[in-house]
This record gives sequence, C-alpha cells and structure tokens, in this order.
Amino acid sequence: MKTIKTAIIGATGYAGAELMRLLYFHPNVSIEIVTSKTYAGEEYTNVYENFNHISNLKLKEESLLEISKNVDVIFVALPHGIASKEITKEILNNAKVIDLGADFRLKNKETYENWYKTEHSSPNLLSEAVYGLCEIHREEIKTARLVANPGCYTTTSILSLYPVVKEKLIELDSITIDAKSGVTGAGRGVNLNVHYCETNENIKAYKIASHRHTPEIEQELSIAANDDIKLTFTPHLTPMNRGILATIYAKLKQKVTYQDIKNAYDKYYGKEFFIRLLGQDKFPETKWTKGSNFVDIAFKIDERCNRLIILGALDNLVKGASGQAVQNMNLMFGLKETTGLEFSGIFPA
Amino acid sequence: MKTIKTAIIGATGYAGAELMRLLYFHPNVSIEIVTSKTYAGEEYTNVYENFNHISNLKLKEESLLEISKNVDVIFVALPHGIASKEITKEILNNAKVIDLGADFRLKNKETYENWYKTEHSSPNLLSEAVYGLCEIHREEIKTARLVANPGCYTTTSILSLYPVVKEKLIELDSITIDAKSGVTGAGRGVNLNVHYCETNENIKAYKIASHRHTPEIEQELSIAANDDIKLTFTPHLTPMNRGILATIYAKLKQKVTYQDIKNAYDKYYGKEFFIRLLGQDKFPETKWTKGSNFVDIAFKIDERCNRLIILGALDNLVKGASGQAVQNMNLMFGLKETTGLEFSGIFPA
Amino acid sequence: MKTIKTAIIGATGYAGAELMRLLYFHPNVSIEIVTSKTYAGEEYTNVYENFNHISNLKLKEESLLEISKNVDVIFVALPHGIASKEITKEILNNAKVIDLGADFRLKNKETYENWYKTEHSSPNLLSEAVYGLCEIHREEIKTARLVANPGCYTTTSILSLYPVVKEKLIELDSITIDAKSGVTGAGRGVNLNVHYCETNENIKAYKIASHRHTPEIEQELSIAANDDIKLTFTPHLTPMNRGILATIYAKLKQKVTYQDIKNAYDKYYGKEFFIRLLGQDKFPETKWTKGSNFVDIAFKIDERCNRLIILGALDNLVKGASGQAVQNMNLMFGLKETTGLEFSGIFPA
Amino acid sequence: MKTIKTAIIGATGYAGAELMRLLYFHPNVSIEIVTSKTYAGEEYTNVYENFNHISNLKLKEESLLEISKNVDVIFVALPHGIASKEITKEILNNAKVIDLGADFRLKNKETYENWYKTEHSSPNLLSEAVYGLCEIHREEIKTARLVANPGCYTTTSILSLYPVVKEKLIELDSITIDAKSGVTGAGRGVNLNVHYCETNENIKAYKIASHRHTPEIEQELSIAANDDIKLTFTPHLTPMNRGILATIYAKLKQKVTYQDIKNAYDKYYGKEFFIRLLGQDKFPETKWTKGSNFVDIAFKIDERCNRLIILGALDNLVKGASGQAVQNMNLMFGLKETTGLEFSGIFPA
Repeated sequence: MKTIKTAIIGATGYAGAELMRLLYFHPNVSIEIVTSKTYAGEEYTNVYENFNHISNLKLKEESLLEISKNVDVIFVALPHGIASKEITKEILNNAKVIDLGADFRLKNKETYENWYKTEHSSPNLLSEAVYGLCEIHREEIKTARLVANPGCYTTTSILSLYPVVKEKLIELDSITIDAKSGVTGAGRGVNLNVHYCETNENIKAYKIASHRHTPEIEQELSIAANDDIKLTFTPHLTPMNRGILATIYAKLKQKVTYQDIKNAYDKYYGKEFFIRLLGQDKFPETKWTKGSNFVDIAFKIDERCNRLIILGALDNLVKGASGQAVQNMNLMFGLKETTGLEFSGIFPA
Repeated sequence: MKTIKTAIIGATGYAGAELMRLLYFHPNVSIEIVTSKTYAGEEYTNVYENFNHISNLKLKEESLLEISKNVDVIFVALPHGIASKEITKEILNNAKVIDLGADFRLKNKETYENWYKTEHSSPNLLSEAVYGLCEIHREEIKTARLVANPGCYTTTSILSLYPVVKEKLIELDSITIDAKSGVTGAGRGVNLNVHYCETNENIKAYKIASHRHTPEIEQELSIAANDDIKLTFTPHLTPMNRGILATIYAKLKQKVTYQDIKNAYDKYYGKEFFIRLLGQDKFPETKWTKGSNFVDIAFKIDERCNRLIILGALDNLVKGASGQAVQNMNLMFGLKETTGLEFSGIFPA
Repeated sequence: MKTIKTAIIGATGYAGAELMRLLYFHPNVSIEIVTSKTYAGEEYTNVYENFNHISNLKLKEESLLEISKNVDVIFVALPHGIASKEITKEILNNAKVIDLGADFRLKNKETYENWYKTEHSSPNLLSEAVYGLCEIHREEIKTARLVANPGCYTTTSILSLYPVVKEKLIELDSITIDAKSGVTGAGRGVNLNVHYCETNENIKAYKIASHRHTPEIEQELSIAANDDIKLTFTPHLTPMNRGILATIYAKLKQKVTYQDIKNAYDKYYGKEFFIRLLGQDKFPETKWTKGSNFVDIAFKIDERCNRLIILGALDNLVKGASGQAVQNMNLMFGLKETTGLEFSGIFPA
Repeated sequence: MKTIKTAIIGATGYAGAELMRLLYFHPNVSIEIVTSKTYAGEEYTNVYENFNHISNLKLKEESLLEISKNVDVIFVALPHGIASKEITKEILNNAKVIDLGADFRLKNKETYENWYKTEHSSPNLLSEAVYGLCEIHREEIKTARLVANPGCYTTTSILSLYPVVKEKLIELDSITIDAKSGVTGAGRGVNLNVHYCETNENIKAYKIASHRHTPEIEQELSIAANDDIKLTFTPHLTPMNRGILATIYAKLKQKVTYQDIKNAYDKYYGKEFFIRLLGQDKFPETKWTKGSNFVDIAFKIDERCNRLIILGALDNLVKGASGQAVQNMNLMFGLKETTGLEFSGIFPA
C-alpha cells in the first residue's frame, strides 16, 4: 500500500490537533505539512507538547494551491467562510480535499447564506461536494474529490434519527433534539464564554432555535424521509472537555414495540463498526466514547406519551470531527474504512 | 418576633446540611436538635467542617414524637418511605412538619404506590398535606400543619411551565422536559454512580421515561390546566456539584408573539421575588443561582416549528429543596416570605 | 451605628464581585458607587446576574478624588501599578482606602520595583500604609487611613507560619511553601491559560521561584522573626474555581512534641475567630472554607526527617481578598471585627 | 515474532482496564484471560463499555497456577497483600509475573511490614523480584521472572531525582516531595473520599508523612546515592481524573549553573524515549502526558535560597502503572522497549 501524503490546514485548533494524533499513528499515512496562521514558524510541539519526542514537524503558512501539488489529500480545519474562498477546481485537480468546516455541507446556497449571514464564495463547488457522513453516503464518498465533513452535533443527531426517519416510524414534524456538548466544541479561541471559572460548575443552553447545525440535520433527514423536515435543536454547554450527548424526542406514528424500533436500527446499522447499538435499557454516556470514533445509540419508548426517546453519544473531536475525516479519507483512498480508527478510547480520561 | 424552634431530621445529608446553613443564619430561628442515623453522637462539625467555630451542635437520634414536644417545626430530610411511617397526627398536634421527601407530595395513594413500588404508610395524612410550592400554593401553606416540600426537578419544571399551561398557550399533550442536574441531586450515599472518575468528564441520561418526579409535575400542571396532563421527563447527570437546568419543549396552540408569552409570565410572576424572568434573548445558567433561592426563567419561540422552548434554572439544594423548605416555614409562621433567603448566592462557586 | 458609605473601584473583577456580595449583605454598610472600566454604563446585574432582583446599581467610571468626597471608605480592586498612581494624600483626607492590589504592601520601594519591574508612583505613601493582615496588625489597622490588603497566597502562608517563626521553632533558612490555587486567583481576564480545556484536568506549577507574593511573605515573616528570611515559594494552578492550600515545609530546630507546636499556635490564635486550628491528624481541605472568611490550619511533625509540615487553607476571594478587606474595614470603623463575616460558607459548592 | 500470551489478574480496576487498553492494541500480544472477583462471569464490555465492538472477552475467576500454565506472562493488579500470598516459585516456573501491587517492591521484609502493617507472605521471593523501574534497572529486568512494578508517586519521584542524587548535586537530607495526584490513583472502590461532590472543587493533602510509597522512593534513591536517604513525601488529591505532578525541593550542595544540572539529566536520560527533559523555563503539566507513557521533567534553581526545584509529571495509570508494566514486558521478552507505547496521548482529554 502506497503511503498517503497528507496536509493539515489549521493544525493548531482542537480539530487540527486531533487530526495530527489520528494521522500520525495511521499506518498508511505521512503528514507532509501542518499549517497555522497564529503559530507559523514554531515547532508543533511548542503548541502541543504531547507530541514532544514524537514529531519534529514545524508549523508553516503556505497557499493551498502550493500544498496541493505535494500531497494526496488536504484536511482543512478552518473557521467557516475561509475554505470556500481558498478551495478551487485547480486545487481539486491536484489533491483531494476534506473540509472539516461548514462551507460545503449545505447543498443549497441560500440556506447557507441565511444561516451563516455571509455570501458563499464557491457556489460552483457545492454540487461536487459530497456530505461526508460515512455510514450514509459511503458510496459517493469513495469517488469524491471534495468531502464536506459533518459537524459534531450533526453527526450525533443524524445518525441517531436516520433509521426511524427512513422507516417512517415517527411524525416528521415532531422532532426535538436536546444536545449537550463539552467545551472543546467551542474551539481554542479565548473569550469569557470559555474562561474556566465561567464554564466550570455551570450548564447553559445557547443559540436556542438558531444554531447553524440545524439546517445540516434537516437537509440530511429530509433526504432520508423524502419529505421536508423542520426540527427544533437546542445545544448546551457542559462542563467537560469532550463529548456530545443528544437526547432526541419524537412522536411515534403508532403504537410500536421495542423490537419494532430495534429492527429499524439493526437494518441500517447492524453491520456498522463505528455505530454501537446498546442493549435494552442501556443508555449512552459520553465517557465511553472519549477518544474513539464510536457513536453509541439507544432508545426508549415512553409509552405513557407514545413518544420515542433516542440517545446518541460520541466524541465531538473524533467521530464528530477528525475521526470521521480520517474515515472519509480511508473511503476515498480505498483503504479499509476502520484503518487507524480501531482505538477503544481511554477511560477514565 | 418570637424565635421559632426548629429540628432537622437527617441533618447530615446534603439537603440537611443546607437546612443547617439556612436556618443557622435565619434571624428568627433557633436550631434545637439535629439528628443523624449514621453520625449520632458526633459533633456536627465532625461531618461538616465548615461549621467549625460556628456551631456546637451534636448529632442525636431521637423519636419524632419526642422531638415534636420541644420544637415548633420539624424539617424531615429522609429517604422516601420513612417519613410516612413516622409522622402521625399526634406529632402534628405538637409541631408543624415540613417534609423534604416524596411521601406526601402525591395526592393520590395509587399514583404514589405505582411510581415508588411500595405501600403508603399514612394515606390518612395525604388529604391534609399541602404541596409546598410556595408561589402556587401560598395561601394553603400559610395554614398547613404538614407541608410536602417539592422535589428539585419538580420545582424547576412546574414553575417554568405554570403560566403557559394556566393560560392555555401550549398543547397539553406536547410537553417534553429535558432536565440536567448536578451531582448533589444524587445525595451523599456512596456508589459507583457518584465515584468522581465515573461522573467527571461525562454526561448521561438516567431513569428515562420513569423518574419519580414525573407524577409530581403532572399532578400540579393538571390542576393548573384543569385537564389531565401526561408528559415526557428525562433527567441527566451533569459533572458539577449543584444546579438544575430544565429545557422544556411544547407545541404552541397558535402563532404567538414574544409579548404574548411574556404577558403570561408577568401575570403570574411579575411580583414574585424568587422568580426572575430574564429579558428577551437572555437565558438561564445554573451558575447565577448557585447558593440562592432564585429560579431563573426565560423562553424562546421557535417560529420555524411553532414550538415554545422554556428554560428554568435553580440551585437544587436551595429553591429545589432546603431554601424552599425555609420559604414554606416563613409562610407557615407568618414571617416575611423572604426572611433569611435574600442571599445573592456566590459566584464563581 | 451610622451606616458606612462605601465605593468599589473595579467592581467587575472576581475580587470586586466578592466585595459586592460581602458589602451588600453587611448590616452597617451602604454601597454608594461601583466602578468598572470595561462595563461602565451597564447595570451591575448585566455582568453578575446573581444580583438580579437584589441590586439596581449601575456601573460608573469616576475619578477617585470625586468618589472620595462622597463615601467613607474606598475599596480599590485594580491591577498593580494603577492604585499607586491614583491614590493621593488629598483622597486620604476625604476617605479611608483599602487597596486590594499589591502597590502598598511592600514597605521597601526597591523590593517593589525589583519584583514588579516598574517604578513605584507614590513612594511617599508607603510609610503610611498599613499591611492589612488583621490577626497580626490589628492595632495599627484600627487607626489607618490606607490599608494594603494582603495577597491570597500571602495570607495563607504568613498565617500558617507566623507562630512557629515567632516562637523560633524552625530553622529560618529552611522554609519551602508549596501552594495550590483555584483559577479565580488568575482573575477574570481572558487568555489561553484560563481556557476551560487548557485548565481542566490539569495541574501545573507556574512562576517558579519568581512569584510576586514571595517578598510579601518574606517581609512579614522577617518582622516576626526579627531576622532576615528568604524562602522558596511555588504556586500551582489547580482545576477548581476557588481555594488555596499551602503545604509548608521547614526544618525543626530541635526535637519537639505535637503539644510544643500546638502551644505556639494556641498562643497566637487561640482566641481568633477566623483562624481554625484543626485537631491532631485532621488536615485542611479547601472545600470547608469555600465562601467563608476562615483559614484552616494544621500541622504534622515528620519525625523521620525532623521536619515540620504545616497546612493552611482558605478561600482566595474571601480571607484571601475581599473578606479580609471587609475585616479591615470593620477594624478601621470600630465595628465588631466579625460583622458581616460570620458566614459558614456553602458546601458542597 | 511469536505472539506473547498474557493474562490480566484484576482486570476491572483502573490499572487493569489500562492494561487491557495497552495490551489489546500491542502488536505482539494476545490477551488470553482477564479475571475479576467482583465481575467474574460478565462480559468485559459490561464493565468497560468503551471495549464494546472491540473485545469479546469474558471475565473469569481462576487460580494463578492454572493461568500460569497457559500464558507467557501474568499481569497482577490486585490490592497489596494478595499477590504475595498467591505467587509461588511454581507459578514463576510456568510464566513470568509482573506485579503492579506493592508486595515485591521493598527489598527489606521489615520495611514492608512496618509500612504496610501486615506480615509478608513470600519473603523467599523478595531477593528474586526485580524493581521494575525500566530506565534504572533495565538490564536486570531483561532476565527477571518476577518484576515488581513501581508505584505511581514513586516513578515520578525517583525519575525526577535520580540524576541529581546520583551525581551528588544535592544535600541528601534535604529532599521534600510535594506530589499531586488525580483521583484514579485512589482506585475504583467506592467510599466518601471519592464521592464526586466531596472531591470536586477541593484539594487536600493526605497520609502526610506516612504514605507507603515513601520507603520505595527512599530505597531506590539510597541505592543511587550509595547512602541512606530519608525524605519527606506529601501526597495531595487533586480534582482531575489522571495525572501526577511532583514538585520536589532540595538544597544544592554548592552554587551551580543551569547547565550543571542539565548535564546530569542529559547524562542519564539523554537517550531515553519516555523521559522528556523540557527546555529551560518550560515546566511539566500533567495534561501533556495524559494517556501516554511519557514522564516530563524540568527543574529550576532558586538562587535566592540555593535550592533546586524539580518538577516531574506523568499519567499515573500509564507510566505510573500499566504503561510501565508493558514496558517491563517488552524488556523481559526482548521486544523493542517502546513497542505498543509510542502513543502521544490525547489532548484535551
């Protein structure tokens, strides 16, 4: 197997650092270049000292075009609005691109512009971009040049809901997603919201009914349902480093048994390695996914209210970002999908 | 003002310790006796060293009847099933009782027995007991001998929903409560669930569609609605010491404006000291209530889904337990309702 | 008792917020003005929402001189270097000043300039300023116009060591202080060091052999010893909001018994309300001091090494800052020293 | 390379779980049997759900002798006093043993019995057991049948001090070790000391001048010094899951430069992979070692006091327990010492 040459653009954010970890220990990959606007010129280990004695990489600042000439795939971990400015067809002719940001996730330019309050710079690439939710778009991803890696809340929410939406088991206008995230989800930028003393010993909701992951979830579930879905999504900031737990509520179309619902999940995920369907009356906890690429999913029927409660948990930096990006790379380069991602995570971490 | 003589039964649990704090610094109260099964015979400060140099109280073990002869009011902070065995009419003739446990909260004996899987020992007292949610049952509480102090999840949920249920603004069969609690809510008993390393850096749901605070919430909202309400309630364990945040979802009956909903809250809570209605697009965070008797409430209309999202936050050991118990005492003894409870809490704590 | 009119300069830092809490609930105090550079013009409750429904104060920006005309005492909670520029004899003629910063703590101008790497702006006030460690300088404080409130590490360290230094029980050149602080000690300013994810799940030492509280500790212990003391001081950042624990090591001059050492502590602190000497083989934990003005002190003789180990714990924002400032005010205005400071703190908080 | 067959005795404690993680992903190892007293009969993934979809192992309860017949090496992770009862020469004839407990660490039977207050059951094995601190006893370990894996505090302390003790740079009677540990160090057993609400937001010292890792540290440093060393060791419990930071103080024998000390560290550790000597004025933080087998070491000369301050940090469950056990195994079986241990750890975790 030929080694895949990779570049990480924005290697000093938390998603970038997690890419570094996953790609560094991936058996078929070499990391050719890591870039950072803030830390260009410094040793990588100056910023992330856990790589001391392991990596000698230096952070650089280089144009995407230049980089694309020397690598097979570019991982882009930049704030939204930037990737769409820099990625061009010329670059895609040179190297594949996996974008961890939001710019190519929404198929509809207007939806993007409404939610992100900014013009889209590369609408011509939207039709080419493949939404990189591996379990759902596996075949398209295999041949893609440009993959839009899904958001963390999004991955949890879509994977938790997909089988029951697809199998028409729930009322489509009844979906509510109440999601709880660790603080790495807010990134490494500094502001009062992530000050230790303001975040510790506190839980709060934010961007209520207005979070930008909402249209992503709606887009993918609407495709699954072959119908237009609108839903309520509420993110919460939880005092922990990593992890997302989504607690999802929907009205059942009719009386169903535990087995009816279980069949739907087994049908779509029975053979998926990274999706772990928990047994009856076992429920996900973020701690069991910390550091790994797994999503843990379970459900409970609230018979008194004829409602379905679905729970999904994952590590926002792995399956919710960089792990999934590597999973996409594996698919795009014909590797076994789980290569470099079989890790159990660490507990207690 | 005559000093009110008080007793705390179960003074070494977290609710008992919080009663100690609130009653000790209450200007019209003396604490005559504190009891503990586990620590009887020890100095109180041996168990809670923050009372060192402040209190010389010794923990005892004495019958409720005996205690009732020497005090004006007994605060009972015991596991469910015990208070109902020990409280009698004779005791109530001697002293008022505020029960922080679950035994007298549900009016319906069968509901209690269904949810708690145990026979009720004092069904004859159920009709006399007053549900001690002060903002809603203020007048009844003033003349009560036996007050059933509400649960922590319950207080948050009922107070958050009461105005919109009362004013018939939401579909009664559409209510979902997603609640997040700090670990003190699980009590001071030791087991793997509250081991630091199993709780830290983790969030999980528990007792999904089966938590015992559910029927309490339904009872009180059904009275408010004058209709039978069933709802979905999901509690979560959050890695922090104190605080409850309830995120509540319901379908709006019709299109409404922000002001329509605000009017409902103002109508019922406009003059309440302990209920703080936050301004538009300000949302509760548990940290602002830590150590105080306040409940912070806000709401947001999700216009895309015509759904109302209500958020309520409080300190589970204060307004969710011991603070409300003191508020009840104030009402029962004709004191100003806020006496001893004006505290701002501590931040960052 | 006439109400004492107070001003808080820098009311939106953590020490300022704690002054707000302590002065607001102080029975003999009114808060006339609160200032903030960053938030001038805003409601105080916009910044600290726990004061919602309690205080209507607005944050202002006004000159110290103007303020001094309208109040009895000014609490200054500003970064070092600023107070010494603004405080003048004219201001002190109008109002007493309690400075929570470092500018007037060191008697020696050169020592200040060496450690703080900046010129001192008011050396003429240094002789007048009284070091506000109440248990040690009580009498001088009573008549002072300008009190330099000690640092948090300093208070813990000096109070823990004072009796054994004064009684010449330890070798003066053998003192090592290993101190652990919560994150509020770093203030409310934002930078990567206080980012939740960089601070959580981590412990580190910082400013090793170079922290600016060192000369303060040395100054006060040298006075106590009537000899020149140099010591090693190492601060650590601990993942918690509040609290300082100092673990102090010193060589014993000769073989001593537990009782010998205990006698020294009893001699100086036997009647002190805010200093709690723990019993044999009980040791301080920061949690028992959280929210209160107490210092908990204990010691252990390491007989194998003939070394004394002293442990001191307090809440860095209370006895380590604002609580001690209020204690100083009580002394300066002839109030009972404990007024407004009898609080037990909150546990678990 | 032949696969090494391994057994983990006590696989459901935190050290056992970490062995599971490290051995499972080790390229030359198979895990043949995992045992647990408490969970015998259950799936391993019932206890540690992070191994769901990865391992099908079932927990058993079997005699060490039986197990020794079927494996090449047994990892024993049991409370002290048990291993010494069960390990025999017969077992050692069958399989190598790496004991993560304390029973074979102290060469001197009396020292063991004094500190552990229990009789030693296998004094005849003490002379055969090799102290498994790889960087120091590498050659002996290679041929050992029974390795006593060092304690977590011990590894941090000895490795931090070894070069300056060996090179006689410090006064041997002046050593003080102030160590801070995460809560996994206390194990998975339940009691009030590890209750979330009693541990969170708190720091405390414990077992002051009496912790059982003391004689281990003294034994190894005395060998290095070829002199009898007694030292003061104070462990602290820190509110985080993993990590040990040791802050070590000692008097310098004479005036030295930074380079003098650096030379000593370079001499002994310059080629060690797992020991990372940080650059001047960079200091260890536990977070950079989380999940990895590295020890980070740095020092600072306190010139004012002619004292050396050394800082060492590691992950107590990896280099402080299971990682070092695997490093020992690698040595004992002639593998490259770093095999299966090159991991960078995870940050932020």
